[in-house]
Amino acid sequence: MAQPRIVIVGGGFGGLAAAKALKKVPAEIILIDRTNHHLFQPLLYQVATSVLGPGQIGFPIRAILQKQKNTVVVLGTVTGVDKDKKCLYVSDADQQDVPLTYDYLILATGATHSYFGRNEFERFAPGLKSLADALSTRNKLLGAFELAEAEEDPRRHQDLLTFVLVGAGPTGVELAGALALLVRTTLKANFRRIDPTSARIVLIDRGPRVLGTFSEHLSQSAQERLEKLGVEIRLGKSVDQVDEHGVVVAGERILSKTVIWTAGVEPSPAGTWLKVETDRARRVRVQKDLSVPGHPEIFVIGDTATLDQDGTALPGVAQVAIQQGRYAARVIRGRLSGNPPPKPFRYFDKGNLAVVGKGFAVLQSGKLRMSGIFAWLIWAFVHLQFLATPGLRLSVFLQWAWTFLTGQRGSWLIVDYHASPPLTSAADADTAMRGVA
Amino acid sequence: MAQPRIVIVGGGFGGLAAAKALKKVPAEIILIDRTNHHLFQPLLYQVATSVLGPGQIGFPIRAILQKQKNTVVVLGTVTGVDKDKKCLYVSDADQQDVPLTYDYLILATGATHSYFGRNEFERFAPGLKSLADALSTRNKLLGAFELAEAEEDPRRHQDLLTFVLVGAGPTGVELAGALALLVRTTLKANFRRIDPTSARIVLIDRGPRVLGTFSEHLSQSAQERLEKLGVEIRLGKSVDQVDEHGVVVAGERILSKTVIWTAGVEPSPAGTWLKVETDRARRVRVQKDLSVPGHPEIFVIGDTATLDQDGTALPGVAQVAIQQGRYAARVIRGRLSGNPPPKPFRYFDKGNLAVVGKGFAVLQSGKLRMSGIFAWLIWAFVHLQFLATPGLRLSVFLQWAWTFLTGQRGSWLIVDYHASPPLTSAADADTAMRGVA
Repeated sequence: MAQPRIVIVGGGFGGLAAAKALKKVPAEIILIDRTNHHLFQPLLYQVATSVLGPGQIGFPIRAILQKQKNTVVVLGTVTGVDKDKKCLYVSDADQQDVPLTYDYLILATGATHSYFGRNEFERFAPGLKSLADALSTRNKLLGAFELAEAEEDPRRHQDLLTFVLVGAGPTGVELAGALALLVRTTLKANFRRIDPTSARIVLIDRGPRVLGTFSEHLSQSAQERLEKLGVEIRLGKSVDQVDEHGVVVAGERILSKTVIWTAGVEPSPAGTWLKVETDRARRVRVQKDLSVPGHPEIFVIGDTATLDQDGTALPGVAQVAIQQGRYAARVIRGRLSGNPPPKPFRYFDKGNLAVVGKGFAVLQSGKLRMSGIFAWLIWAFVHLQFLATPGLRLSVFLQWAWTFLTGQRGSWLIVDYHASPPLTSAADADTAMRGVA
Repeated sequence: MAQPRIVIVGGGFGGLAAAKALKKVPAEIILIDRTNHHLFQPLLYQVATSVLGPGQIGFPIRAILQKQKNTVVVLGTVTGVDKDKKCLYVSDADQQDVPLTYDYLILATGATHSYFGRNEFERFAPGLKSLADALSTRNKLLGAFELAEAEEDPRRHQDLLTFVLVGAGPTGVELAGALALLVRTTLKANFRRIDPTSARIVLIDRGPRVLGTFSEHLSQSAQERLEKLGVEIRLGKSVDQVDEHGVVVAGERILSKTVIWTAGVEPSPAGTWLKVETDRARRVRVQKDLSVPGHPEIFVIGDTATLDQDGTALPGVAQVAIQQGRYAARVIRGRLSGNPPPKPFRYFDKGNLAVVGKGFAVLQSGKLRMSGIFAWLIWAFVHLQFLATPGLRLSVFLQWAWTFLTGQRGSWLIVDYHASPPLTSAADADTAMRGVA
């Protein structure tokens, strides 16, 4: 009899945890991702601000799963699911939807930022979700200083050296801190006509405080730290407009050539594919075993799912995705071996961390609240721990130590990337060749 | 009295050497480059084959010259020179040609590959001259294996897993060796449906041997080593056609989705800007003091210049550019301080090196000829030595040691880059804003 096939969509924290937890299962596992790498998203802002190179936070999924012989990794984009036929569709190199049947399906397709219905903002205020985003943001940030330096009229520097970050969650706060450090340390002594430290960094959120998921006290500490680094903070203010000239915040125009969006949550279209109930943000409502109502063979995990625990929805963080990935794998393992199902999923909150600039982080875990250098050391240790391989851990550790000591960044590069041509397969080359020959 | 202004165009080996040698000169030095980084081109093939990340061979020019207070670094593209007005034109962010006057001009604008009049080949067979080239080549190389793995019909793998390199000079040879290693070590155990080691690597040159500038004996050693690594070598054969299906070599069609061009030399348009005599390859003929006839204030150095020494033209290698950059700076220093001019320029050939795969290089220096692991150790040492900063030396050394021991590459990444939007300055923002407000 053929082995059951388990298809996992997404090689992020959730999908990868599920794949690893299925290591010894007698099944054919297919992991599909749109990119070839598992991305350590929490450090994406460090690629954007030139501390790390892309190879230090991205590692090939197939290399991580190299020794797991029951697993095939496929680069592809899922375009839909047919629940009744137990079949999903993968767009191949020729842009055709190739059907792929499954016995079990785990959708771990993540989320991106939400423009709250104003998708036209995206062009002027890109998000920070992929390596391509981070590299393109880096080009913009560093390019603004180059343009200002090349410009002789100082009145023209104002909008070039104004950076607006929309969203004061962990990504916005960490990016603001890293950007402030970039101008105050690395860039500082390197320009002749402009003073990089005169750059204006504006952090905007419509909520009442930065790091809204942390305690009020920690929010306050983070805000003070950011202000000490020179970051301007505008809270309780909505962004009415984003265009080529900058933003309008609560009626006030801020001229800026570089606006970065880190607000809101827009889940993947898993809910649309499955035609199942979602919450207001369109996340799929899953059951206590993370499966979809009526379809015990389909699991949805991580940022693209929603599940209440003790009356509140679980947060969209890596730890939830990882624990859910492992849990879904356990449910499948149980079914395949005829064991009883595990107890309902329960998230164990190990705590949350956010770093603000150099040598300062906030930490919240259970009743523990901590801010300062000790929290920062824990932050560094935890993040190194969760990198995909020992090689990355060593490389990132050395880079951090180097940057900490010398102020030198690992990747202060503006690269004028060629637009990636679509990867095309041989397709009709045989036929075409007959014409040529 | 205003200080004299020395403009250097190009931050490669030649331009950077000139700038550094002008460190203590009482002059205003402006170094212009199209990118923000000095690129260590000899290791570009290692970025293309995933060993190194872009930040390990590219380093910001302004950071290298940070402490040199007489020097301004400007990101810009030179579009022309007016010899009589002592003025050059720099394209700024708004694509306008801004004039910049000079008292002394050093053109160190380099060269790229030549398609021998068949520029339509470029689309299908890009070269390897910039970080963007290397990253786009990397995407293609790694992408081919991903497409083949995703493809169920093995007959369709043939052209995906055939890699054609045109030009068997150092770049072609080093790339062929690195690619052979990539498939035989790193990729080998990572695919389930295809066998990466079955990839065909074809190296083509119209000359009679690989590494034509080395001795016949060393060419032979390099060729044997490449063949041992599985590289197919076609010598004395011209490429008649390059298109979406692959290449036609001496009448034979080779199906390939990945063709890389490393042949020929096409200098920058410095000769056209200056309207001066060039050689057949359009390199500017310079005098023994590296200046242009009739214009003692204009120097042309490196790959974009040509100068005979002992009856043969100097080779287009980094060492020539570096020594010429230092020499041009010396001539200028002499003129500014009223000292007599130095003796005519003479290139001191320290020797040439090329690496073939792992633990093997060829070395030719004066009468010394060497091949094997010892030459490889010298190769590694010399290349580390010439990297721009101690940080890069450490980082590349560690990466090499890691890859040597584990077979793991530093940057096995396919990134679907966003096309870089042009950097635009504030320009008419003020005016535009009046309309908006």
